Amino acid sequence: MFEQLKEYLQKRIAVTDEQFEMISKDIKVKTFEKNKVLVAPGEISPKAYFITEGLMRCYSIDSKAKVNIIQFAPENWWISERNSLFNEPSDFYIDTVEPTTALLIPKNYIQDAAQTIPCFADLNYKMLNNSIRFMQKRINMLLSATAEERYLDFIKLYPNLTLRVPQWMIASYLGITPESLSRVRKDLAHKHFKV
Amino acid sequence: MFEQLKEYLQKRIAVTDEQFEMISKDIKVKTFEKNKVLVAPGEISPKAYFITEGLMRCYSIDSKAKVNIIQFAPENWWISERNSLFNEPSDFYIDTVEPTTALLIPKNYIQDAAQTIPCFADLNYKMLNNSIRFMQKRINMLLSATAEERYLDFIKLYPNLTLRVPQWMIASYLGITPESLSRVRKDLAHKHFKV
Repeated sequence: MFEQLKEYLQKRIAVTDEQFEMISKDIKVKTFEKNKVLVAPGEISPKAYFITEGLMRCYSIDSKAKVNIIQFAPENWWISERNSLFNEPSDFYIDTVEPTTALLIPKNYIQDAAQTIPCFADLNYKMLNNSIRFMQKRINMLLSATAEERYLDFIKLYPNLTLRVPQWMIASYLGITPESLSRVRKDLAHKHFKV
Repeated sequence: MFEQLKEYLQKRIAVTDEQFEMISKDIKVKTFEKNKVLVAPGEISPKAYFITEGLMRCYSIDSKAKVNIIQFAPENWWISERNSLFNEPSDFYIDTVEPTTALLIPKNYIQDAAQTIPCFADLNYKMLNNSIRFMQKRINMLLSATAEERYLDFIKLYPNLTLRVPQWMIASYLGITPESLSRVRKDLAHKHFKV
């Protein structure tokens, strides 16, 4: 479990085995069953999750009981509830879509690790900016892209999720109806595009 | 001009006049006419902008020549092209909607300032996380909210923009048609809601 996080970090910054051990003493591993709700609106989550196996998602349920998926987090992704960093209650749910094993990361982990390993501050800065770039792109897609463009973007971002996730959840993430998604998939199949 | 930035910072972190002078020596002031394009897709922007007067926006133009507005930046807002932080070409345009005076902030300003004033790192961390929270909320609104809910959220976020910005631009930001926006405004007026 910890090896996966160590590899993730070592791909991005210089971390020795000793340094990794020092900064990892407060991390715990936990396995959750499918459909386990870890954070609900109104709660303050004390942790971020680094997924080593399985799949989590972040979502809202609106006044019409429609589920709106903000993010999927498969293996080697992080997922966290950002309001909790400011000790404010969550706007969203986080749950497991599959049985999931995750590292439970104390919420100021990267900030604290930066005290031990200065280049962790750079990593945090890059990860936060990448989240912003990623979300700007998503907002742009939601404002402008066709259902087909959104779906093609989704399979580029999450190449192994199309068979793991129910179609209605993908439609929810894309902001289209399940019927539109079904049409898009049929059209792409006709064009011999592997979906 | 510089006073406005100093006040902005002093509201958020402890900065003395001397410290502010030290970290501000590379900042320039510039006034731009209306409709001036400052960054276009494919370009690398060397700067962020802190608006002291006027209004900028960040947007894309899609394959159907439709304009999609990602962000407005009126007085006391920051606007920047995030790809440039990684020396990658911009995905978006940034231009002025009104004649605008802005401080031209070197792109690593807050990181560099953190060398002089350690609490700048906290400010940067908070600002980046707030951007992420803000965009998660916007994605959620685009996935789930009605045209009226989106408009009410817009006037809460940008209280003084509804009269300054052409209606089609507000519709573009909200991801609705100008006709829908016109209907929403009429409905709200009937309910005696000040729009």
